[in-house]
Amino acid sequence: MACWYKEADKVGDIIISSRVRLARNLSDLPFPRRMNDDMFIQLKARVKKAIDEIAATGDLKLKFIEMNAVPENEINAMVERHVISPDFARNYHDRAIAISDDESVSVMIGEEDHIRIQVIYGGMALDKAYELADCLDTALNEKLGFAYDNQLGFLTECPTNIGTGLRASVMLHLPVCESSGQIAAVSDAAGKIGLTVRGMYGEGSKAGASLYQISNQITLGISEENAISNLKVIAEQIVDREKAARASLDIKELEDAVFRAYGTLKYARLLNSEEFMKLISMIKLGINMGIIEKDTIRPIELLIIAQPGMLQKSFSVMSPRERDEARAEMVRNMI
Amino acid sequence: MACWYKEADKVGDIIISSRVRLARNLSDLPFPRRMNDDMFIQLKARVKKAIDEIAATGDLKLKFIEMNAVPENEINAMVERHVISPDFARNYHDRAIAISDDESVSVMIGEEDHIRIQVIYGGMALDKAYELADCLDTALNEKLGFAYDNQLGFLTECPTNIGTGLRASVMLHLPVCESSGQIAAVSDAAGKIGLTVRGMYGEGSKAGASLYQISNQITLGISEENAISNLKVIAEQIVDREKAARASLDIKELEDAVFRAYGTLKYARLLNSEEFMKLISMIKLGINMGIIEKDTIRPIELLIIAQPGMLQKSFSVMSPRERDEARAEMVRNMI
Repeated sequence: MACWYKEADKVGDIIISSRVRLARNLSDLPFPRRMNDDMFIQLKARVKKAIDEIAATGDLKLKFIEMNAVPENEINAMVERHVISPDFARNYHDRAIAISDDESVSVMIGEEDHIRIQVIYGGMALDKAYELADCLDTALNEKLGFAYDNQLGFLTECPTNIGTGLRASVMLHLPVCESSGQIAAVSDAAGKIGLTVRGMYGEGSKAGASLYQISNQITLGISEENAISNLKVIAEQIVDREKAARASLDIKELEDAVFRAYGTLKYARLLNSEEFMKLISMIKLGINMGIIEKDTIRPIELLIIAQPGMLQKSFSVMSPRERDEARAEMVRNMI
Repeated sequence: MACWYKEADKVGDIIISSRVRLARNLSDLPFPRRMNDDMFIQLKARVKKAIDEIAATGDLKLKFIEMNAVPENEINAMVERHVISPDFARNYHDRAIAISDDESVSVMIGEEDHIRIQVIYGGMALDKAYELADCLDTALNEKLGFAYDNQLGFLTECPTNIGTGLRASVMLHLPVCESSGQIAAVSDAAGKIGLTVRGMYGEGSKAGASLYQISNQITLGISEENAISNLKVIAEQIVDREKAARASLDIKELEDAVFRAYGTLKYARLLNSEEFMKLISMIKLGINMGIIEKDTIRPIELLIIAQPGMLQKSFSVMSPRERDEARAEMVRNMI
């Protein structure tokens, strides 16, 4: 399987990607905030051992990486690829991650909780993602013993995660809902059944490239299956709303905007991040509307690899202008 | 020789084209405003005979065309190609024109004066244009007998043309003088020696595509040769000023703007006239600055053939939106 953003260009339409995350803690260690250095070392060693055993007996091979061995640019790039959380990136020195080659499966060690299991796929693949996360959860639980209360469910550092410890999300591309002012309505509808709508890189961030993340908030008094199912229902409703909005577009004007975006991406010598994201969004819309052929250009992959951290990673330290230049060059080479 | 705008893409840099026009009247007919229909018929017949005799004995073959046989769209297109004056186009029913295949040489019959001899070439070619106009003037004078006063020179309908009857002009591409606010200074300098600076299609029109026409105003008390020579000197000064302005540009930003213009021209599906002219100007600048290769795209030819009248001519009657669509399509096919 390719990493999620390559997959997103192949199978993703309005639903770009699906992600499931499980928060778990070992029952015989204090929560990370109360752990000392020795306990951190112990935690990492035990998780590594469990991961290695799982790899030895099954198909799931995760590579164990100490975060302090990872250069800062790569850390930023990992956030941009959605491999680690921004929170995990901010204070990563004692932390570690176990990750599959395609980066679709990862286990963050020492984030807010002892471990965070994450599975991310391109397109609508919540069931498949949950299935794998659940499987890995069961295997790790057998070896590590997770803190669990019969009344409450899984115990977590933050009370908002107690219960299932599950955070499921889908990333949606909603350019026409956005341009026609419907995001507030989408957000309200989602809020009514305990889901939230956020900009691309999670809480507090602005929506870049008209990408919105819908995720569940309720973890207590609901089964993991029901949480996933609620999210799927709402996601499909939002997809229908975006499709309806798209149906009322002036096709000739859309074609013009899409091809202009293509021309600019193909020929610009300086591309700042903000403009780049808007152009990419237009290309993605153009592909979904059948204006540009799917194989001509891979917008979601471009979006990810031309983020500042990813560019810095490829080109070493740069000024903003050099970055705009490098971004334009990278985009040209990709088209 | 190709028509002036094709030639302009080959040889024109900052100086796009050179034009010479001579106003002449037959001594034995009243000025056009006081002519009746019979006199108009007589005028046209005599000029046609003279033109035919010149063609029979030399290299200059002009085709004689009655303007009322020309469809309205083609009339507009002729103005856009600078073959006839806007004034000639406004009331053309009794008028006629004699014109060479490449449209570089023409004789308008029945404009403000009985005849207006015009020679237009791409690039800086004032001497060559004047030489040919003078030659045709002499030949026609022998056969038709022009109104001439030993004190004043050639007599014309409008007193501002009396004397040489010569209007010489060069069209200059001054994008950086324009963007750096130097056009007023250029205009002042030209005014001091009796030259005027105007937008692309002559008096009262705005400068499209940063094209400016510099022409002489004084026809009395100056020889034709001196008038031409003054114009050449000022044109070269303006060229130097534009070159100096270009030298201070940020090359990376210019490259970006030029290639974006190229991308938009290549991919847009709707192009209005105003945007189109700006893009063309950027391309022309890009070619002259060595950013785009000369043969990749022919901006001046594109500029001329994508004018409203030229488009109407190719595509029949259209709404403004259809014209923007046709313009975009024509441009795409040309790149």
